[in-house]
Amino acid sequence: MSNIPRIQGVLSPVLTPFKANLEPDVPRYIAHCKWLLANNVGLAIFGTNSEAASLSVSERLALTDALLAAGIPAHRMMPGTGACSFTDAVTLTKHAATSGAAGCLMLPPFYFKGVSDEGLYAYYSEVIERVGNANLKVYLYHIPAVSGVPITLNLIAMLRKAYPDTVVGVKDSSGVWDNTKAMIDQFAKDGFDVFPGSELPLTQALAIGGVGCISATANVNPAAIHAVYAAYTANGGTPETAALQAGIDSVRKIFQALVMIPAMKRVAAEFSGQPEWATVRPPLTQLDAAVVPNLLAQLKALGFDMPGFSRQ
Amino acid sequence: MSNIPRIQGVLSPVLTPFKANLEPDVPRYIAHCKWLLANNVGLAIFGTNSEAASLSVSERLALTDALLAAGIPAHRMMPGTGACSFTDAVTLTKHAATSGAAGCLMLPPFYFKGVSDEGLYAYYSEVIERVGNANLKVYLYHIPAVSGVPITLNLIAMLRKAYPDTVVGVKDSSGVWDNTKAMIDQFAKDGFDVFPGSELPLTQALAIGGVGCISATANVNPAAIHAVYAAYTANGGTPETAALQAGIDSVRKIFQALVMIPAMKRVAAEFSGQPEWATVRPPLTQLDAAVVPNLLAQLKALGFDMPGFSRQ
Repeated sequence: MSNIPRIQGVLSPVLTPFKANLEPDVPRYIAHCKWLLANNVGLAIFGTNSEAASLSVSERLALTDALLAAGIPAHRMMPGTGACSFTDAVTLTKHAATSGAAGCLMLPPFYFKGVSDEGLYAYYSEVIERVGNANLKVYLYHIPAVSGVPITLNLIAMLRKAYPDTVVGVKDSSGVWDNTKAMIDQFAKDGFDVFPGSELPLTQALAIGGVGCISATANVNPAAIHAVYAAYTANGGTPETAALQAGIDSVRKIFQALVMIPAMKRVAAEFSGQPEWATVRPPLTQLDAAVVPNLLAQLKALGFDMPGFSRQ
Repeated sequence: MSNIPRIQGVLSPVLTPFKANLEPDVPRYIAHCKWLLANNVGLAIFGTNSEAASLSVSERLALTDALLAAGIPAHRMMPGTGACSFTDAVTLTKHAATSGAAGCLMLPPFYFKGVSDEGLYAYYSEVIERVGNANLKVYLYHIPAVSGVPITLNLIAMLRKAYPDTVVGVKDSSGVWDNTKAMIDQFAKDGFDVFPGSELPLTQALAIGGVGCISATANVNPAAIHAVYAAYTANGGTPETAALQAGIDSVRKIFQALVMIPAMKRVAAEFSGQPEWATVRPPLTQLDAAVVPNLLAQLKALGFDMPGFSRQ
């Protein structure tokens, strides 16, 4: 069992910048990761909001290697390594574990629906056994509205029992507080790290044993979200912490009302002065131009900014 | 534009046999394909029932090459080449088109839900343009209960307008006759080939302009399903054709009442005498042993058999 401290706090499913020809823009990707790290946000590369599903395995491996070559520390990374095929998941997870990643955020196989917990257990087990790395830390990824395949409390219990030092956490993107609370209540006391998939319940989760959040909007609002984590960790649920939480909630809700990936990329384009940032891979489409002025006006009204965001 | 005749009639999403270690069993796969061809059933390799989602891109390419090396004719193949990432879809589709496959059966990207027809159009367009092969024939794959992403009539119209010689058909696995009928009514007259995803509506579809079916149960009942196609094509909707249709319906309904992939693989194990045939990749699990006796008894009562099915 590894004694490396667990990654906790605020992480972001890192937006993947594309060039106009839809290839990943590697220099911009590295710059974005550095900016997130400078704002104390960890790198959940290849999450839903990274459009990881729209990247091939080889593209994901090449991007990881590019980050490592640029000096981005592996211990601040939690790559998404789940895939429909366990053979792909093994390839991705082995690479991440060998690279020294803090953990792997693993979707269940998401093509077949209505599969049993036994089948999902077998999938995770195959990956863990075939990777065979004692330092591997797996975080389960519950995002049923997208994957269509839930990570149940029962499945977590099965995996915790078999792999207590490997299956060490979950990202709960259900958006259902009662589910997040149940995960924390049932498993946190034994060292299972629960990250809500949004900053909206951040202090609420920290108060009962959650360890942070993994949030898409940390791509655009990292410092303010981390400030809530830091304030709660230092001082608990003070009125000041509550005020900071209210501030990040307001920003989140603006993005959440839109298709989030195109909206965040459009804002990144705006604040970097680089229109190419708005590029998404199909099947996503760029944000409807008609909604952009209102989006920017709403953000401006909140005093939103992205200080230091790369203008390269 | 290619003048090669279109693939029509009965096709099967070919079951992928695995060894106990979960690797594809290549000799058994080749033998199964040959048996299907001998029973006049075309090879929709890498469909849903092939567990294609549980295979990596490189595994799919290697299996295709193994079939070609074994002399299986490419013009009898319709490989599934859709993928969440258009880059993967390009790799798979290019390989299929270059190999001379009769067509490619393309799922939409199925991770993101609620995407627009414009986004799906962009995905198919990227693949078609990047493959750049005038002989490419794309069949759209509508299986909303699994993919979560429907192929709408509007999307078909958009693609037909842009790529009339390339986007030439659809597999409709909605199980909704009104949808199959609408696809045929709206597009068949212009040479768009509609295959229901089951043999249940086979004669019904042929009667109004459908061209066959692509059915999972053609893996186990190929001769009888083809006999319905042949009878209708030769003689139309006679009482004899109706009786044959009723026969294949009875077999289908037995499998449809169970989880179909494990049920078909279990029957393949039984009729080949090779227990390994029952192997599935996770997240699927083998058929519950408790239901096997009843499954076999139901099939026996119908006089079901798999004559010539490989016992290698």
